[in-house]
Amino acid sequence: MKALVYEGPRKVVVKEMPDAKIERPTDVLVKVTLTNICGSDLHMFEGRTDMESGRILGHENLGVVIEVGNAVDRIKVGDRVCLPFNIGCGFCRNCEDGLTGACLTTNPDPNMAGAAYGFAGMGPYAGGQAEYLRVPYGDFNCLLLPPGTEELENDYVMLSDIFPTGYHATEMSGLRPGESVVIYGAGPVGLMAAHSAAIKGAAQVMVVDTHKDRLALAEKAGAIAIDDSDGTCVDQILELTKGKGADRGCECVGYQCCDHHRREVPNLTMNNLVNTGVVGVFLPEDPGAKDALAKKGQIAFDFGQFWLKGLKVGTGQANVKAYNRRLRDLITARKANPSFIISHELPLEQAPDAYKNFDDRKDGWTKVVLKPGG
Amino acid sequence: MKALVYEGPRKVVVKEMPDAKIERPTDVLVKVTLTNICGSDLHMFEGRTDMESGRILGHENLGVVIEVGNAVDRIKVGDRVCLPFNIGCGFCRNCEDGLTGACLTTNPDPNMAGAAYGFAGMGPYAGGQAEYLRVPYGDFNCLLLPPGTEELENDYVMLSDIFPTGYHATEMSGLRPGESVVIYGAGPVGLMAAHSAAIKGAAQVMVVDTHKDRLALAEKAGAIAIDDSDGTCVDQILELTKGKGADRGCECVGYQCCDHHRREVPNLTMNNLVNTGVVGVFLPEDPGAKDALAKKGQIAFDFGQFWLKGLKVGTGQANVKAYNRRLRDLITARKANPSFIISHELPLEQAPDAYKNFDDRKDGWTKVVLKPGG
Amino acid sequence: MKALVYEGPRKVVVKEMPDAKIERPTDVLVKVTLTNICGSDLHMFEGRTDMESGRILGHENLGVVIEVGNAVDRIKVGDRVCLPFNIGCGFCRNCEDGLTGACLTTNPDPNMAGAAYGFAGMGPYAGGQAEYLRVPYGDFNCLLLPPGTEELENDYVMLSDIFPTGYHATEMSGLRPGESVVIYGAGPVGLMAAHSAAIKGAAQVMVVDTHKDRLALAEKAGAIAIDDSDGTCVDQILELTKGKGADRGCECVGYQCCDHHRREVPNLTMNNLVNTGVVGVFLPEDPGAKDALAKKGQIAFDFGQFWLKGLKVGTGQANVKAYNRRLRDLITARKANPSFIISHELPLEQAPDAYKNFDDRKDGWTKVVLKPGG
Amino acid sequence: MKALVYEGPRKVVVKEMPDAKIERPTDVLVKVTLTNICGSDLHMFEGRTDMESGRILGHENLGVVIEVGNAVDRIKVGDRVCLPFNIGCGFCRNCEDGLTGACLTTNPDPNMAGAAYGFAGMGPYAGGQAEYLRVPYGDFNCLLLPPGTEELENDYVMLSDIFPTGYHATEMSGLRPGESVVIYGAGPVGLMAAHSAAIKGAAQVMVVDTHKDRLALAEKAGAIAIDDSDGTCVDQILELTKGKGADRGCECVGYQCCDHHRREVPNLTMNNLVNTGVVGVFLPEDPGAKDALAKKGQIAFDFGQFWLKGLKVGTGQANVKAYNRRLRDLITARKANPSFIISHELPLEQAPDAYKNFDDRKDGWTKVVLKPGG
Repeated sequence: MKALVYEGPRKVVVKEMPDAKIERPTDVLVKVTLTNICGSDLHMFEGRTDMESGRILGHENLGVVIEVGNAVDRIKVGDRVCLPFNIGCGFCRNCEDGLTGACLTTNPDPNMAGAAYGFAGMGPYAGGQAEYLRVPYGDFNCLLLPPGTEELENDYVMLSDIFPTGYHATEMSGLRPGESVVIYGAGPVGLMAAHSAAIKGAAQVMVVDTHKDRLALAEKAGAIAIDDSDGTCVDQILELTKGKGADRGCECVGYQCCDHHRREVPNLTMNNLVNTGVVGVFLPEDPGAKDALAKKGQIAFDFGQFWLKGLKVGTGQANVKAYNRRLRDLITARKANPSFIISHELPLEQAPDAYKNFDDRKDGWTKVVLKPGG
Repeated sequence: MKALVYEGPRKVVVKEMPDAKIERPTDVLVKVTLTNICGSDLHMFEGRTDMESGRILGHENLGVVIEVGNAVDRIKVGDRVCLPFNIGCGFCRNCEDGLTGACLTTNPDPNMAGAAYGFAGMGPYAGGQAEYLRVPYGDFNCLLLPPGTEELENDYVMLSDIFPTGYHATEMSGLRPGESVVIYGAGPVGLMAAHSAAIKGAAQVMVVDTHKDRLALAEKAGAIAIDDSDGTCVDQILELTKGKGADRGCECVGYQCCDHHRREVPNLTMNNLVNTGVVGVFLPEDPGAKDALAKKGQIAFDFGQFWLKGLKVGTGQANVKAYNRRLRDLITARKANPSFIISHELPLEQAPDAYKNFDDRKDGWTKVVLKPGG
Repeated sequence: MKALVYEGPRKVVVKEMPDAKIERPTDVLVKVTLTNICGSDLHMFEGRTDMESGRILGHENLGVVIEVGNAVDRIKVGDRVCLPFNIGCGFCRNCEDGLTGACLTTNPDPNMAGAAYGFAGMGPYAGGQAEYLRVPYGDFNCLLLPPGTEELENDYVMLSDIFPTGYHATEMSGLRPGESVVIYGAGPVGLMAAHSAAIKGAAQVMVVDTHKDRLALAEKAGAIAIDDSDGTCVDQILELTKGKGADRGCECVGYQCCDHHRREVPNLTMNNLVNTGVVGVFLPEDPGAKDALAKKGQIAFDFGQFWLKGLKVGTGQANVKAYNRRLRDLITARKANPSFIISHELPLEQAPDAYKNFDDRKDGWTKVVLKPGG
Repeated sequence: MKALVYEGPRKVVVKEMPDAKIERPTDVLVKVTLTNICGSDLHMFEGRTDMESGRILGHENLGVVIEVGNAVDRIKVGDRVCLPFNIGCGFCRNCEDGLTGACLTTNPDPNMAGAAYGFAGMGPYAGGQAEYLRVPYGDFNCLLLPPGTEELENDYVMLSDIFPTGYHATEMSGLRPGESVVIYGAGPVGLMAAHSAAIKGAAQVMVVDTHKDRLALAEKAGAIAIDDSDGTCVDQILELTKGKGADRGCECVGYQCCDHHRREVPNLTMNNLVNTGVVGVFLPEDPGAKDALAKKGQIAFDFGQFWLKGLKVGTGQANVKAYNRRLRDLITARKANPSFIISHELPLEQAPDAYKNFDDRKDGWTKVVLKPGG
């Protein structure tokens, strides 16, 4: 089959690889129809992780079931399914508690919890930027899509990661209907957080970024765009909230956070935040970082102020299965349309160019969907 | 001052009464500008309660502060305020737990908890269908309205009862974003529940009633109207949910629930419901009822089926203060507009006619706002 | 293998039956070492359900794994396991939400949710009052017991149903540390609720019953025993709580609730209760009942008073998996010892006599554990 | 009246001060019978805060009401009351949300939220290490103690701060019955956290410290003492939990955290922790600190690892009123006895010596109660 393979820092190619196949009786085999490039694919692309050469990338996948193992009871050949990027088993201590992103079964490394398709450190699973994908524990991991809704596939594919991840940020922040929320970052995650906050009935959704194209998308999601090009975002937020500050906050930038001179300042948004849901990716260590603490995966955190305000912070990967059914039903009812972030729909063959353009943060490259089917 | 006074079953008059005034150092005195007639005012109007003759009705009030007691610290003369119908003290065991609707201080009857303005059995407090209103524990009970938003007063007055009560029904039902909910009753409470469910991101809001004018308002709130004139509501719901039934349910009818022949059948909606938030008013006893159990305040409840499904039910008056600030902020941000239910805006003098028409369930009499100011 | 078989109302026999075996790749086969008789076994024994003749009873089971299907990844031969009476699949909508007691996969009847071993209406699964037991979806359903704790088996077997069920009653009641709770019924479920409430830090645990032997066990669990032989339980509770009533309540009696003249009065405890967690079994219909409403599965419920107090009620089977790991760890740490309710440990052969004595509510027959092993 | 007055770093004296008196109609005047010295009093004593000279210290107070303002309705002369160290108003946005520790009314500094008796930066209120104490908003702030329980005063006085604060740490950690918890620090807060965790039904309570006398008290509270004198606490915890680590964690040390060479290492316990409830005091800035980040109130936080594990952290002062009623009822029922931490009961006159000994961390000086009455 054709697949997008990582061959070292800033080098990905589309080439022939052995076909994905059923390996365990609980597996499901999927013909991939849509598969996104994610911001965290760029972490691997840039060589800032220990991703092995020769592996297929892609953890945001949607497709049609073409074969099932003999222990699979729920999923049938022909079902259209969206796959959470987290691969869970459904029966370990963490999956039982709903923490499918920290599954204790699917990652063979005994010091790590959690697995994903085509992801550094998250188990040996091939990614879905390919023609076929093997889905472990298929009954547990497949989200069924309703028949007769093919025109919504660009929306449904966002259920694999980015929409639940943005939603998760709003959950971590504790947002309730009628409250105000500030979201740092208008990348795909931040935009999905803004979309989620609007759906949940926030009275005021503010999105902070410095990229005008992304801020325009935030406004499309019903948010108030806050341009921080001059570093005045805190003042702008205070003015918009009549001096009170936002009730809730979401960090959707992550460890490659930059100041307005485009320098990486890993603790910038965390220390800007008041009430915070953190879902931007932070790394346990980052040897290439310029910041001395960041090399060790540390940030200089305003803990005294944090304590004084009695704040709470929640972090981590979204447990996609915690949200994907309800978000699917919102899409089906036309009350959510996360595909508004898509800037490019491309065949698999053009994936290498897309990686390069996306990594260069080229204007207008917000979100790329690959269509291996054609 | 002029006030609407209850003088016995189906008899209310507007007449001169002694001016409301500051009685305790924690009191606030309000000049009433808007005051609604509520469905539960009709229970008193019809003589189905033990309301005393000579008392002023009206528990949905909004106005301007004209005097404050010497122990009042937060509220100032000139503030525009909306008053929760529940009168709480802020310091008893129940108020501490947020159950302001069951305040242990403000009702002098030791066997009752909870107080309200102009309400049978809820303490000696005068209602606000009058020129002036005394507000006990003013710092605790007044909700401040933002300056410069006078055009939203018809919306803000709904914060006194009906909007938080409808919202409470959705809270009791456990509704989460992306779920479906069925609401029994398209009276003001049911319509506010539908409005709240839409704001909270329900994927599907279904409203059941038999009155076409009310169902039209439900559609205005973004809901799917289910006409139960032929008694097929359960079938319609099953079809709309592809056989699964609604995820959540709200009972917004109460004890005067009728079947489609307009006979009172108090257990009808409760036994129709699956997952249920009950906020329609039920009475501890109702001696005039035709139903033998209802005389004793009982209903024949399908408890076996209820248990088998492992359902939960929550009930009671809304604790308005639990929700009114956030709902106010939604109105201010133009993300909620509960005034869409208003059918009539009338001067205080026309209140007696309004009671009669509203009690007759005349077509188009959904919600009446009285304007004592002029 | 030897097994206890239901052969019609009040007739159970121990006889040879075909050996249990692996039928699906996800199955686990267990050699049963302990299996309890439950109060709900008596509902079937008495012929008040539609239990089919010829089926093996027993849903409270513990044993050793002797074989696993080829899709089983977590459970190994030799593991000592306790089985939740609910049989879940782990991947349906309800199991995903933690409602394993309402699994949509394991019950083949499309109008029913939830399955159990040897239980009327809960699927075709054989019970464990036998030498061997087939466990579907073994990875999901088996609770591992720690090696080296064989002396705790009498405690661990309570994790299959009765201890989580009693704990569930306290969860449904909303009990928080430092609150008072009243528990109606000192049968096994009520005693487990009392044990759970004490573990959770209730300030006051009151247990109401009329059987002196059971009330003595309640005191052993640290509770205050309330003898309702004279029908004064409500007065006694008010006195113990200085007139406030209990903060929380648990109904652990069920539909065979009797007044102090030993007449069945199905609505008695429900209407005695204030804040209520209901786990006693109620039936959707009960044609043999003397009470006219009860025939239809209805009770005359004091709904008016219930609404006025703003109460909540939660019901249903315990989802055992929601609690069994944590309760196991309390047993292992010697901080819970639910075996204090056991009155009889008997070989499987004596099961028919045990059913008879238990059903006669003979003094001292609180809880029977059968030991098929020997 | 006699009172303990701060006169500069390491200098406190007992001297005559003007009598406390009713200043506002909502005030209550209390004759102090018990008043503790708290670890945070030492922060002020050491001169590490901006506490003004001439102010009376003491925020853990209990006494008898001797006068009430004319707007006080609930509290009567003669009532025995315990006062939460947080002074709330009961009607601001934060008090409404239960965040009485961040009251927006009682602190006159518009940039600060929250007030306390005799505390740096927490408003102008005099402390209770004196004969009399003025209590603002007395109806809201006084916790009534039941008549006839005078022998429990040493326990009840702990309700003012230290017991709710320790309990709060366990709440922030998310501890559920049957889980394991590790508590860093066996000072008074850590010991109260251990006591609370045991009351709540933790399966395993582990307490880490290096002081043998404090670890002995932890064992008295039913905890497993972990001596970290050799820096092996993490290994010991892993062994006790069979390699899994603790389910929950509480940081009860604060910013003066030391390594085993008695050097201050502010980020030590935070980075040791896994799931964390932080209640040890951290400061927004600490100019006298040796650690460069600490001067700015920052710590070098292992954020990458924190994110990777998907952890949550909650912080801040305990909102005492959220817990004090239920904890009082546990004391009254003899199910909590927080006075076990008291090492010294002294007359007010000996307070200056007690400050010195307590600040020197002299062996055996765990907790001092002063008795101004005699």
